[in-house]
Amino acid sequence: MYKAVISYDGTRYFGWQKTKTGPSIQEQIETALTRITGKQVPIEAASRTDRGVHATGQVIQFSLEAPLSTEKLKGALNAVLPDDIRVFEISRKEFHPTLDAIKKEYRYKINRDAVQDPHERLYSWHVYQPLDFKKIDAAIPHLLGTHDFTSFSNRDAEGEENPICTLERIHFEKNIFQFVGDRFLHKMVRNLVGTLIYIGSGRVALPIEEILKRKDRKLAGITAPSKGLYLHQVSYPL
Amino acid sequence: MYKAVISYDGTRYFGWQKTKTGPSIQEQIETALTRITGKQVPIEAASRTDRGVHATGQVIQFSLEAPLSTEKLKGALNAVLPDDIRVFEISRKEFHPTLDAIKKEYRYKINRDAVQDPHERLYSWHVYQPLDFKKIDAAIPHLLGTHDFTSFSNRDAEGEENPICTLERIHFEKNIFQFVGDRFLHKMVRNLVGTLIYIGSGRVALPIEEILKRKDRKLAGITAPSKGLYLHQVSYPL
Repeated sequence: MYKAVISYDGTRYFGWQKTKTGPSIQEQIETALTRITGKQVPIEAASRTDRGVHATGQVIQFSLEAPLSTEKLKGALNAVLPDDIRVFEISRKEFHPTLDAIKKEYRYKINRDAVQDPHERLYSWHVYQPLDFKKIDAAIPHLLGTHDFTSFSNRDAEGEENPICTLERIHFEKNIFQFVGDRFLHKMVRNLVGTLIYIGSGRVALPIEEILKRKDRKLAGITAPSKGLYLHQVSYPL
Repeated sequence: MYKAVISYDGTRYFGWQKTKTGPSIQEQIETALTRITGKQVPIEAASRTDRGVHATGQVIQFSLEAPLSTEKLKGALNAVLPDDIRVFEISRKEFHPTLDAIKKEYRYKINRDAVQDPHERLYSWHVYQPLDFKKIDAAIPHLLGTHDFTSFSNRDAEGEENPICTLERIHFEKNIFQFVGDRFLHKMVRNLVGTLIYIGSGRVALPIEEILKRKDRKLAGITAPSKGLYLHQVSYPL
């Protein structure tokens, strides 16, 4: 079984998962593995990132009928894949990419310039309005620890997903939000960023602990755009 | 007369100058000015950047029959232009963008990772081979000062262009080359970068002072790819 750490520019993809509506990262990698091995090779990822979301540390898992050396496989994949998807590392490891993940880190990049540099436009959210960082800093500690994050999830009310997550770190520095937790609900990071920015710009007046407690998505801020979000790292037991 | 400082992602453009073969930055800005004013507005730029070259500080000049406030004009242009071209500043100034320029700064970005992050692929040259930076650092001082840069120009031997340029600074730090000079010949920065990288990887053995002296383009290294080059700043007398 192989573990690969991959990076992608999500701009032109309809997300991780194969879909009939447009290109996906999963499809590109499965096609590359078929070109290399001549076989169908199903892959699984640590996180099914949404349309337009980037990754600098997505983790995938797959098995090959006829094993190849990890260095050869990495070289072959990077030769065959489109240049907006790269394989950083490949190792042999028996693991399950979602069930065994103990920690995930997402990053979210904003751009605070009056006029955004065009080279940043595909990779950050342009937030040009004034922000009160004292309000943002005061809100963050209330989100740490174990909570029901229903207010920050886009799942159906009827959804079966467990809404309890534990966040161990939220940090904002050099225009990058860092979120570390054991698991994240659908669109949770983008909803947290949208809400923190709305708190900073005075558009959400309700205290964040109150938003959490009420379990009502409508009380939180907007979903921040996908182009600022990066799946940065997924950790597994050694 | 207006002076505007603009930035663009050159990826999808055939260069600054209008051409029949594909989209140009000049055409986009002239079209935007026509949409705003209802008139044809010819513009001139400090540098006619090549296909695929970026700018973070290109300077352009134009005049309007019916003057607009600089703030309004900037807002209108940024609303009408495609998002890979942005206007950072507009002021009123009587000047000529090429003849009055006293100093230009270009930057050239390389990427030295074994596997290039896909988010860098459109904005840097991936140079993964080992480089001897002592050789690069030793070559740089020979390029400073006033020289005939024919060996680093893609102009015709018959070209009328004056090949004498004065470079006051070449600096390499954090994978970015910085070049400051009074003027630059066609493709000169990319030829200098290609040659310095070839010197660092041992593929050009001839001392750089000898390459300069012989005035022969064939002795220098390759032309570095356009995607790593940025027109960073153009200075004018106050």
